[in-house]
Amino acid sequence: MKLLVVNGPNLNLLGRRQPEIYGTKSLADIERELRESFPEVEFEFFQSNHEGAIIDALCATDARGVVLNAGAYTHTSLAIADAIAGTGLPVVEVHLSNIFAREEIRRQSLIAPVCRGCISGFGADSYKLAVASFLQ
Amino acid sequence: MKLLVVNGPNLNLLGRRQPEIYGTKSLADIERELRESFPEVEFEFFQSNHEGAIIDALCATDARGVVLNAGAYTHTSLAIADAIAGTGLPVVEVHLSNIFAREEIRRQSLIAPVCRGCISGFGADSYKLAVASFLQ
Amino acid sequence: MKLLVVNGPNLNLLGRRQPEIYGTKSLADIERELRESFPEVEFEFFQSNHEGAIIDALCATDARGVVLNAGAYTHTSLAIADAIAGTGLPVVEVHLSNIFAREEIRRQSLIAPVCRGCISGFGADSYKLAVASFLQ
Amino acid sequence: MKLLVVNGPNLNLLGRRQPEIYGTKSLADIERELRESFPEVEFEFFQSNHEGAIIDALCATDARGVVLNAGAYTHTSLAIADAIAGTGLPVVEVHLSNIFAREEIRRQSLIAPVCRGCISGFGADSYKLAVASFLQ
Amino acid sequence: MKLLVVNGPNLNLLGRRQPEIYGTKSLADIERELRESFPEVEFEFFQSNHEGAIIDALCATDARGVVLNAGAYTHTSLAIADAIAGTGLPVVEVHLSNIFAREEIRRQSLIAPVCRGCISGFGADSYKLAVASFLQ
Amino acid sequence: MKLLVVNGPNLNLLGRRQPEIYGTKSLADIERELRESFPEVEFEFFQSNHEGAIIDALCATDARGVVLNAGAYTHTSLAIADAIAGTGLPVVEVHLSNIFAREEIRRQSLIAPVCRGCISGFGADSYKLAVASFLQ
Amino acid sequence: MKLLVVNGPNLNLLGRRQPEIYGTKSLADIERELRESFPEVEFEFFQSNHEGAIIDALCATDARGVVLNAGAYTHTSLAIADAIAGTGLPVVEVHLSNIFAREEIRRQSLIAPVCRGCISGFGADSYKLAVASFLQ
Amino acid sequence: MKLLVVNGPNLNLLGRRQPEIYGTKSLADIERELRESFPEVEFEFFQSNHEGAIIDALCATDARGVVLNAGAYTHTSLAIADAIAGTGLPVVEVHLSNIFAREEIRRQSLIAPVCRGCISGFGADSYKLAVASFLQ
Amino acid sequence: MKLLVVNGPNLNLLGRRQPEIYGTKSLADIERELRESFPEVEFEFFQSNHEGAIIDALCATDARGVVLNAGAYTHTSLAIADAIAGTGLPVVEVHLSNIFAREEIRRQSLIAPVCRGCISGFGADSYKLAVASFLQ
Amino acid sequence: MKLLVVNGPNLNLLGRRQPEIYGTKSLADIERELRESFPEVEFEFFQSNHEGAIIDALCATDARGVVLNAGAYTHTSLAIADAIAGTGLPVVEVHLSNIFAREEIRRQSLIAPVCRGCISGFGADSYKLAVASFLQ
Amino acid sequence: MKLLVVNGPNLNLLGRRQPEIYGTKSLADIERELRESFPEVEFEFFQSNHEGAIIDALCATDARGVVLNAGAYTHTSLAIADAIAGTGLPVVEVHLSNIFAREEIRRQSLIAPVCRGCISGFGADSYKLAVASFLQ
Amino acid sequence: MKLLVVNGPNLNLLGRRQPEIYGTKSLADIERELRESFPEVEFEFFQSNHEGAIIDALCATDARGVVLNAGAYTHTSLAIADAIAGTGLPVVEVHLSNIFAREEIRRQSLIAPVCRGCISGFGADSYKLAVASFLQ
Repeated sequence: MKLLVVNGPNLNLLGRRQPEIYGTKSLADIERELRESFPEVEFEFFQSNHEGAIIDALCATDARGVVLNAGAYTHTSLAIADAIAGTGLPVVEVHLSNIFAREEIRRQSLIAPVCRGCISGFGADSYKLAVASFLQ
Repeated sequence: MKLLVVNGPNLNLLGRRQPEIYGTKSLADIERELRESFPEVEFEFFQSNHEGAIIDALCATDARGVVLNAGAYTHTSLAIADAIAGTGLPVVEVHLSNIFAREEIRRQSLIAPVCRGCISGFGADSYKLAVASFLQ
Repeated sequence: MKLLVVNGPNLNLLGRRQPEIYGTKSLADIERELRESFPEVEFEFFQSNHEGAIIDALCATDARGVVLNAGAYTHTSLAIADAIAGTGLPVVEVHLSNIFAREEIRRQSLIAPVCRGCISGFGADSYKLAVASFLQ
Repeated sequence: MKLLVVNGPNLNLLGRRQPEIYGTKSLADIERELRESFPEVEFEFFQSNHEGAIIDALCATDARGVVLNAGAYTHTSLAIADAIAGTGLPVVEVHLSNIFAREEIRRQSLIAPVCRGCISGFGADSYKLAVASFLQ
Repeated sequence: MKLLVVNGPNLNLLGRRQPEIYGTKSLADIERELRESFPEVEFEFFQSNHEGAIIDALCATDARGVVLNAGAYTHTSLAIADAIAGTGLPVVEVHLSNIFAREEIRRQSLIAPVCRGCISGFGADSYKLAVASFLQ
Repeated sequence: MKLLVVNGPNLNLLGRRQPEIYGTKSLADIERELRESFPEVEFEFFQSNHEGAIIDALCATDARGVVLNAGAYTHTSLAIADAIAGTGLPVVEVHLSNIFAREEIRRQSLIAPVCRGCISGFGADSYKLAVASFLQ
Repeated sequence: MKLLVVNGPNLNLLGRRQPEIYGTKSLADIERELRESFPEVEFEFFQSNHEGAIIDALCATDARGVVLNAGAYTHTSLAIADAIAGTGLPVVEVHLSNIFAREEIRRQSLIAPVCRGCISGFGADSYKLAVASFLQ
Repeated sequence: MKLLVVNGPNLNLLGRRQPEIYGTKSLADIERELRESFPEVEFEFFQSNHEGAIIDALCATDARGVVLNAGAYTHTSLAIADAIAGTGLPVVEVHLSNIFAREEIRRQSLIAPVCRGCISGFGADSYKLAVASFLQ
Repeated sequence: MKLLVVNGPNLNLLGRRQPEIYGTKSLADIERELRESFPEVEFEFFQSNHEGAIIDALCATDARGVVLNAGAYTHTSLAIADAIAGTGLPVVEVHLSNIFAREEIRRQSLIAPVCRGCISGFGADSYKLAVASFLQ
Repeated sequence: MKLLVVNGPNLNLLGRRQPEIYGTKSLADIERELRESFPEVEFEFFQSNHEGAIIDALCATDARGVVLNAGAYTHTSLAIADAIAGTGLPVVEVHLSNIFAREEIRRQSLIAPVCRGCISGFGADSYKLAVASFLQ
Repeated sequence: MKLLVVNGPNLNLLGRRQPEIYGTKSLADIERELRESFPEVEFEFFQSNHEGAIIDALCATDARGVVLNAGAYTHTSLAIADAIAGTGLPVVEVHLSNIFAREEIRRQSLIAPVCRGCISGFGADSYKLAVASFLQ
Repeated sequence: MKLLVVNGPNLNLLGRRQPEIYGTKSLADIERELRESFPEVEFEFFQSNHEGAIIDALCATDARGVVLNAGAYTHTSLAIADAIAGTGLPVVEVHLSNIFAREEIRRQSLIAPVCRGCISGFGADSYKLAVASFLQ
């Protein structure tokens, strides 16, 4: 089973960006942990700060499912939501922090209505739980 | 490790209530699956249609953590949110359907700000993922 | 034909509570009038100030239809709305006063979207008209 | 007893307009049924697509009461509301569908605050129940 | 100097409609008073409950100015506002009661932005003051 | 092919009403141009300042489609929207100016949800493009 | 008959402040015109940029009525509204420009609900019409 | 003089729940202090996490007045507000913390409109001041 | 112990201003009662209709605490709120009527977030309770 | 005459993305049809999922006009609106579906205020009508 | 060149008021620094807690420009905004803290629309930068 | 000292884009002026129409501070705000026009809450003042 793991804007800063909110693991750490925890899954990892590049990646992939942390685009990008609906890919939305417990603007997700489910607030474990949801 | 699994209003109807949204498994099915999947966990199950009874249960438990599907009270009960904050219990919010993809009133969770995390949209698997989050 | 007539919070006060709004008949008066006016109907009467108890009653009944005056819960209880949808019972919403003519918060009914119809503003006669609607 | 039954815009289309919402009876069918069901009532029937004509009719009638289905003007006509208040006629608001269960704009009635009561959601029976309310 | 005095919906009821708000003078009384108070003005009086008829009147007149009490259409008719702007007539908006002191919906005038001025709250004198404003 | 072209309130003023917004052509000019540009189409032209008359026209026509410039009623008439839905006629909404570029109240169209499409901002050409849309 | 004419903030600038909105007459010009036009009235004139001083003046006067142009305090001062209600003085609200035709914030008057009436948009004539309203 | 002191949801947690907001005294401490400070008052104490039970208690009491800390139900329970209005009991609303200084949702009290007064922010002393208010 | 008692706009009218809302005692009556009831307190009394003068008084005082009835400025003055925060004085907000039971604009206090507590609805006793709160 | 046809995010998916909304033609099909229907026009076609790339294209073109389907950026991109205003290019906004008939967020266009006109709801024909508008 | 530097409410507290937000320099310190840094500028300094006094100062000055820190009046005073517009003075708005980064009510400036520019967030340096802006 | 000067979408058009709002200087002019005015500063200049590229630039720079004119992204990009917070760079927000004096959507800055300060309205001088703020 092949899964695409997409990380959006500023997630390249993970580990050095506001660790009290986002933890101390880097994105490379998270990716390595996923490979180790789920050896039966073929992973494709993609990170970009560009909304358009994320859409391009969703349009181009041949993965069976997507784990998507869209970062701030979660709250502002109707275009990514359209890409999810348009490609028909099953997408699980993940967040490191519990976005529904944060400031008003982060409590609304534009992509949620087209995602299969949402996992929010478990730090790096959010990714693992999302991958696990595809294996149930 | 002991976990309290709380189910709120109308979840007693699971299996016969709107199966196109909530699936065909009964609450008893879900509870049995949890016991089977996580034999290392001691489970305490509680279901009530009464907001006050859910608060009573949260105040009385000696569990290490709580998996809470507050049903419609998710959206209307500040009192349950206060009970979570007041007891200091780590609570993971779960939903069978992806509430953030449903009608406006169900996109807002009053309890999210005091929960550790949220798992929404995976049907009966939402509970399993929530329990798994305590075992990471 | 069996009908369940449910009265919500503070309707036990009928007759002594704000008679200029709600009239001088007690709930017992109304129930007696219903039995007299509709001898062909088997009535089950239930009153509670507890939101959860109203849900329990809706889940437990074997009546063919429900006449529901949810009182203030009309405006705040999404859980009762879910119980109506979940049980699939045909429910007619009734109100003594014309709630749509009162203050802002009483002009919105959370349960209306799942009710068959609504009868509002005819005092004790609202109940009779609701029962009549099941007999048409 | 004389009652005026007023039907507003597009109710002339009844029977051929969106039967899944409004049923298959024509307005003539409904009027005939009312005459048959309530032989003791003298009926005056009026239908118009013109807001002003409805106001004219309310100002001109010598009926003892009014059954009013204002159609879409329910939600946009403060002038009809003023006519009800100005003439002092007892008016019962009726709707074929349960407007409080429909889209946002149809959940608010500008005329409700000046009506004696409201009956909504019983199809052609809504009219019968409204007439019955005058006979209690 | 010729002035058109337009009265909108329900103002035909003046004198018998809610006298505690609108006073006891009929529309004919007001018109007679205007003729007596301003013999130098040629008056054209028009009343209608029809929004379209008011627009027709505004389009057809050869008066030098208009005194307009649009009644409830003040708050709902963008079309009358467009007619005022489209004809380029100087219009003074009048109201018997002080609409800005009444319920929320009556505090907003859709026609105000295209009127020369507004006189509100002086009962039948509002008309006299409006005519006087054209004579300054 | 027969098309009904409906023009709403104040469009009788075209050519002399605010030409900087609406241009210098009269409604007769536009109608003549349509006949000349589309000799294969049988046109039925209708203009009224009365909301009810527009609904009457929609109910009465035997045309195959409708080109509708509802003027200010675009923004306030739910009843015209209901007439479009009720008759099932394919309607193309047209506007001389680009209403979506104007003040707030003109950016919302109540009739759009029941129209096949919308053409806005091309002056008299808006009508031609609308007719062309039926011929594609 | 004694009338108090109160002018609020920045009305001391009249004549040199934005003449395209407020005209070229100074406040002294307006006061002189009022004395000339209404010799039978005893005038007390007061202008201040201080909200508190306007309240002091309303509390201290022995006039029979008040003509009040509260300037920007019209839109922000609940305290002046309370002073009007508290003293029980009959107050007519005046404005040089038609405030209801201006930007959003100027379309709402906090003092209107406690004023007898409102005259807006007639430049310096607004004051004359207000005085005339007391003499009817 | 007999007073009923009602405490709502989670106030059973007092002393161990968020002491930085609610202080270190338990509910039993507060009740003992009230008895000691006001020996002339007969106290009836009631605490429940159930909205319905609080309504039941208000309906059943024979006390002369009520001191009510409705906790989170302050902000969500229209039914408790109706019970206060329906029983006609004089009720003083109290809060340990100054709710008007807290987050948005806690700044609005649904019960305030039917209470005699409100005392908020004095910790356990709020109760004493409320009792004192009945003795003035 | 020295306390400053500050009264805002229109409280000089007490006793003659709307006694059905504010009672029949004058401000002098209230001040005398406070001196008599609390002989151990040194009182400094200040009343002004000027927002700025109230700020000046707060900045200048050497009192240990402040009892503040800011009148209408409660709802509009962010500057008084800043003065309370800036001086660091403990302030208890008082109101004669229960402002939270009045019209919308009076239900919001801009100064509450920086006050120690709030006492509202006990007429002249509100002041006594506020002073008592400093003596607990 | 040279026209630039810009297609925004996800329009590369046309034909395979939600055909029940967007039809079965691919973007290449539409471009070929435009060339065939308007041989007199020189077309420059551009599609990108990148907001910035669309702005770059608008800044770089030497076309005489632009046909722009900005997809989801229609509703979220103020920057594209600024590019249209900044370059001064005449732009016609097009949409395949009638966006004004869809969900709330799609009913508002940020780019409309700077476009010459808007054509919405005619599927692939929307493009043809837009090109035709340049040829009138 | 002569500049007027106006400081509004509570800025007299600078240095002792919430130094973690506003810094430790007093207003006198800031004024001395300005004189030292810009010896070529003639300064007129004015501070008041009175909204009206600030307006008086703006009306009276003969300075060439104004540096204005209106404190809390920034967010509530339409009258000061009118004074700026009325006098035609070039005004630069300054703030010690970055008001656009603070709580909601402080993110909106009523005076910004009539100011030349705004400098916010540089502590005492905000004043220097504002003066520098006049010297460019 | 090294400073990064970032210019967002459409600022490449400076000088030819709407000069009545943005002035006649090109971006190259502004950059040259900065180098000349501040020879002691090492400047890194970057302009892009791509939101993602601006984030990339913020992540990659080794400058000591940033002068950022985010153009339209100021109002729509939460992702750029996150990049500022995530990198921890001191950023001064600049605008050529006074955005707080423009249309509603431009009065709100999503990036302000994470910027050190804001300078708005001084045309090309805004940049100079921003650089000067780093040198104080």
